[in-house]
Order: sequence, then structure tokens, then C-alpha cells
Amino acid sequence: MSSKPTLTLYHHPHSRSAGVRVMLEELGVDHRIELVDLQAGEQRRPEFLALNPLGKLPTLVDGDTVVTEQVAVYLHLADRFPEAGLAPPIGDPARGTYLRWMVYYASCFEPAVVDRSQKHEPAEPMMSPYRDFDSMLAALEAQLAKGPWVLGERFSAADVLWGTALRWTTQFGLVPKTPLIEAYIARTTARPAFQRAAEKDAELLATA
Amino acid sequence: MSSKPTLTLYHHPHSRSAGVRVMLEELGVDHRIELVDLQAGEQRRPEFLALNPLGKLPTLVDGDTVVTEQVAVYLHLADRFPEAGLAPPIGDPARGTYLRWMVYYASCFEPAVVDRSQKHEPAEPMMSPYRDFDSMLAALEAQLAKGPWVLGERFSAADVLWGTALRWTTQFGLVPKTPLIEAYIARTTARPAFQRAAEKDAELLATA
Ligand SMILES: N[C@@H](CCC(=O)N[C@@H](CS)C(=O)NCC(=O)O)C(=O)O
Ligand SMILES: N[C@@H](CCC(=O)N[C@@H](CS)C(=O)NCC(=O)O)C(=O)O
Repeated sequence: MSSKPTLTLYHHPHSRSAGVRVMLEELGVDHRIELVDLQAGEQRRPEFLALNPLGKLPTLVDGDTVVTEQVAVYLHLADRFPEAGLAPPIGDPARGTYLRWMVYYASCFEPAVVDRSQKHEPAEPMMSPYRDFDSMLAALEAQLAKGPWVLGERFSAADVLWGTALRWTTQFGLVPKTPLIEAYIARTTARPAFQRAAEKDAELLATA
Repeated sequence: MSSKPTLTLYHHPHSRSAGVRVMLEELGVDHRIELVDLQAGEQRRPEFLALNPLGKLPTLVDGDTVVTEQVAVYLHLADRFPEAGLAPPIGDPARGTYLRWMVYYASCFEPAVVDRSQKHEPAEPMMSPYRDFDSMLAALEAQLAKGPWVLGERFSAADVLWGTALRWTTQFGLVPKTPLIEAYIARTTARPAFQRAAEKDAELLATA
């Protein structure tokens, strides 16, 4: 088994690190939370830029290793604590499907959502990584329709990522609240780990 | 060890699958290549859309599992064939660094390059995943400067990805040809696996 790590998550509840806090609750592992006040510009402090030169959350420090990029942080944590069963292990036939839908968030969903937020048309087919917004969303919905989870009967880190991502993008009106998507968000965020993370985040903001 | 897989790569030499073919050469594993003629629109055939509804390359079929998204395909292949040593294993301190720079391609580099190709300014800091083009590239260059490889002394799948990515983006004039970047591309593409993939790709196009 893995040696006992010292984990620090640089975090703000209203940022892409929100789901990583849920991951830590799902895993049930010891960790430290460092609030980075984005409004106050704390992500531009030299100490923080030394960890992540883009000044972005989430940033995770695991012992001597710095992990940035939301999807990398999820992949890292899920594999590091296999006892929690949040990732199909290497060699499991579901592993490739898991990696596909984890990376899809970064390589298709986020570019499509950001373009939509800026009212930018997708680039031509050789350049645009996601084809067009509707195709991108239809492919995701077809996978979610297999349900109840991204990997079917098996809950995984992919659901922490997608539950969180669909929650904020529907709240911002960037993704339509279809019945399928609403039911998936409800199912995911009803989990005790989501509830615990929400309570701890509220406390963090109240005492900051 | 892993059971003997049947791997099929849906591929076109002038596409994001180019580096995956190099990966297969680096790994030295049996595989089949299916040319998808993008100019002729073969990526819109129903049989192909059944595998990947976005109609995109690379698409890898590994037994019964379909893996899409370039970064997912690399991560999958590198872990599936650990004998080749192209990914630090789970638990290795370099694993988090490896995941960070693999995902950085999808979550920062590609969005920045696509925006630049479209002459789009980055979104505001909460939305833009990569801050701005120059910060995105400076962070990557700082990592490459540690060299000779993304993980320092250790060659990995990350170098197949970044060698390929920097080659096409500098050729397209989207990324500047700095001495550091040019030396890195030269070092990477000089590897026998890159050479073999280039020869096989030339043959594939000549006989198609
Ligand atoms: N590419 C990064 C993007 C992370 C990101 O953009 N985080 C935002 C918050 S949601 C941030 O920290 N913005 C602060 C800033 O850029 O000043 C990832 O995938 O994790
Ligand atoms: N998100 C995908 C993007 C792949 C992609 O856009 N591939 C291009 C070729 S470089 C493609 O297949 N385009 C054909 C089309 O969209 O018609 C990934 O990360 O692999």
C-alpha cells in the first residue's frame, strides 16, 4: 500500500478546486486545506506562483510533488488511494473508458464551454478539439444515459468530476438543464462526501 | 503482466494521432492501423461514429474498450505496457509530475493554441484555463529547461506527446521556434521510434 502522504490542497470553494475537496472527502484521507483568496489576488503571490506559475486552483502538494490541472489532480488522487476504489485499476477493462471520460472534460467539455461563454464559434474540424457544442454534449449525455454513473454501475472519480462540472456549468447557464443532466447532478451531489465538502466549504468562507 | 491485447489505432498521419503511432513504436507492441481519410470525410461514416461520436482521431480500440482523446490514449497505452517504462508507476514520486504535464497539454496548451489560431483573446482569469498564451508557454519552457526530458533524466510518454505537439504547432507558426523548443523537438524526433513511425506513415500515404 501507499506510504502515508502529506497532502495540501490550495483551494477556493468557488473555483475548479471544489470537486477536488469532494475527492478528498470520498477518499477519507488526511489533508490540509489552504484557502487562496482569488478576489484578493492571493494566487499572484510569489510563494504560490512558485508552485503553479499560472496562479491557478486547484494546486495539490503531495509530499515533494506538485500536481496542477484539475484532471491530473483527480487521476493522481484516485490511483494513490486504491482502497477507496475510485478508479478502475490498470489492466481492468474499464480503465480506458475511465481515462477517456476524465480527459474528455479537459480536451472537449471545457474548451466548448469556454468558447460558448465567450460567444466564440468552434474552429474548423481539424483544429477544434470538440467538433461543436451540441455534438460534444450529445456524446457526454449518451454516456451518462447508460448510468447511473459514468462507468455504469460503478461510481468513480469521473462522477466527482462530472457532477461538479455539470453543477457549475448549468448554474452559469452554459449547459442546458436537461432532465438527464439534472438527475445526474442530484444523484452525485447527494452523496455524503459532497455534503461534507459543502459544509466544510461554508465554514471556511464564514471564518476566512 | 498484461494479457495480449488486440490494438487498433484509427489514424491519419496528418492528425493528432501521429504521436500515438510513435507511442506504439516506442512500446514495440503488435497493433493494427486503420487509415481514416479525413479529406474524404471517412470520419463521418456511421461505423466510425459508433466508436467515436465526435468523429475524431486518434481513436484506439483495445479489445472491447474504445479510448478517445489523445491524452487518454497515451496514458492508457503507457500504463498498459509497463515493461517499456514510458510512465512512472503509481506510487513513484514522479507520477504526479507526469500526470500534470500530460494533462497540461489538453487543459492549457491546446486551448491556448486554438485561441491563438482563431485570434481569440483568452477569457477572464476565472474562466480561461491557461491564463494567457505567454504565461502558458513560459511555464512549459521552464519545465523543458530542466531537461533533457519533461521528467528530467527520464524519457516518458510525455515526451512523445510534447515532441509531437511542439513539432506541429511550430510548423504552423502557432508556437515560436525558440532554441530551447527547437532543441527539444530535435532530441525527441531523433529517436528510432519517431523515425520508424515517419517511414511507416509515408508508406501508408503512398499506398492509400
Ligand atoms: N487549467 C487549469 C485551470 C484552473 C483554473 O483556471 N482555475 C481558476 C479558478 S476556477 C483560477 O484559479 N483562476 C484564478 C486566476 O487565474 O487568477 C485546470 O485544469 O485546473
Ligand atoms: N479532443 C480530441 C481532438 C482530436 C481532433 O480534433 N482530431 C482531428 C484531427 S487533428 C480530427 O480528427 N478532425 C476531423 C474532424 O473533426 O472532422 C483529442 O484530444 O484527441
